Amino acid sequence: MSTYKELMERKSVRLFLDRPIKEDVLAKLYDAAIGAPSAGNQLLYGMIEVTDEKKRETLARCVDEQYWILKAPLIIVFVADHRRWLDLYRAYDIEAERPGLGDIWLALSDANIAAQNMVVCAQSLGLGSCYIGDVIEHYEEFKELLALPDEVIPACMLVIGYPQKEALKRPKPRRFAKEYVVYKDAYQLFSPSEHRHFYEERDKREGFDYKAAMKRFYDFKYGSDFSKEMDRSAALYFEPFLKK
Amino acid sequence: MSTYKELMERKSVRLFLDRPIKEDVLAKLYDAAIGAPSAGNQLLYGMIEVTDEKKRETLARCVDEQYWILKAPLIIVFVADHRRWLDLYRAYDIEAERPGLGDIWLALSDANIAAQNMVVCAQSLGLGSCYIGDVIEHYEEFKELLALPDEVIPACMLVIGYPQKEALKRPKPRRFAKEYVVYKDAYQLFSPSEHRHFYEERDKREGFDYKAAMKRFYDFKYGSDFSKEMDRSAALYFEPFLKK
Repeated sequence: MSTYKELMERKSVRLFLDRPIKEDVLAKLYDAAIGAPSAGNQLLYGMIEVTDEKKRETLARCVDEQYWILKAPLIIVFVADHRRWLDLYRAYDIEAERPGLGDIWLALSDANIAAQNMVVCAQSLGLGSCYIGDVIEHYEEFKELLALPDEVIPACMLVIGYPQKEALKRPKPRRFAKEYVVYKDAYQLFSPSEHRHFYEERDKREGFDYKAAMKRFYDFKYGSDFSKEMDRSAALYFEPFLKK
Repeated sequence: MSTYKELMERKSVRLFLDRPIKEDVLAKLYDAAIGAPSAGNQLLYGMIEVTDEKKRETLARCVDEQYWILKAPLIIVFVADHRRWLDLYRAYDIEAERPGLGDIWLALSDANIAAQNMVVCAQSLGLGSCYIGDVIEHYEEFKELLALPDEVIPACMLVIGYPQKEALKRPKPRRFAKEYVVYKDAYQLFSPSEHRHFYEERDKREGFDYKAAMKRFYDFKYGSDFSKEMDRSAALYFEPFLKK
């Protein structure tokens, strides 16, 4: 299959077969991540494979109680890492200052870019994957669970495994039209009716109450406990970088 | 070529042929980005193609005076966007609150994941690409240049074009050994001698003064004007999200 087709067909998989990932396949996934573009070839991230059963359970609870992830043979937390370079500088007797906000921003990019290379590689090897964004929550518990120093913050989490047939049958969610996300020379604002048009055109459901659906979505995304927790936890993660 | 091989061979390209990118190829690049995984299928990002000559020049100056990018037929700034959803909620009369730090964190992930899908697609279509991380600098000028609202912040920039032969001859920079970035169940700290080992093993240069090279690198990355500017500018971009 062409790479383009693979990219277009890839969708999240949350139902996995009880089939382990062999060492050589796992090695390829890590190779692909490490081979991804990285600012100054620094690899400003780490990949923490969570294998310990107890840790996996705590992790599943921390990411908004998504226990289905425990069925995945592979769980990897991608962390944005400015500790490794700090220690590396110091290993050469350089009196390195603590990293700043710009540094961790770049590191977050590095981590997500590497993760996406792993996702693309997984797809081409017949593996399914799903991002879990909730890794930003529960600062104290999460930090302790994975022994994260202050200069290391979670970027994203991937769960990977061989997909069940059911998962492959699920259609890929329709995306917004290109005009809603691609702009020329400046960011583009839209009118309320244009916003409604792009949203309703994406979901295309006959006789559907879009307004009520949007309200439910808003309450879920912003009003929910996990949303408040995400903001609280994110602020704690960023604090050391704001102090520089 | 297999997807795995494409991922492994991809390296940054900074020398482009004077050859435009045709519409159908460009469409595929955007399709691939939009087809990337996105939190809640929200596409929390925008892609601003910078085509205006004057804007391109200002942009090149803003990203630490990298005028070589002007030779690229395609320059796209990826922005993390929580304005579109704010306006969408309001288009349905929902009294939506401003997004918080957790929201923009997720949006930054979304943007970088989409950008990497574009990079992978470009590689498979014979196009070269390079990330420019310096988009975080020069808050005031950059914001005005691309008309960015407060809820929209730069995530990364891609320059894309057909590579010159010279660019393809450049070897891909060697990466760190897997053991330096892949951990089991917890973040791993290393001793100073381990750090030096991994670094020197990556660069493998006979009779090389690694210590002096590291000092130069440190001064370039942290002591430089662009590094200070990056921190200043990043703090301004984040401010609205910290206030929630």
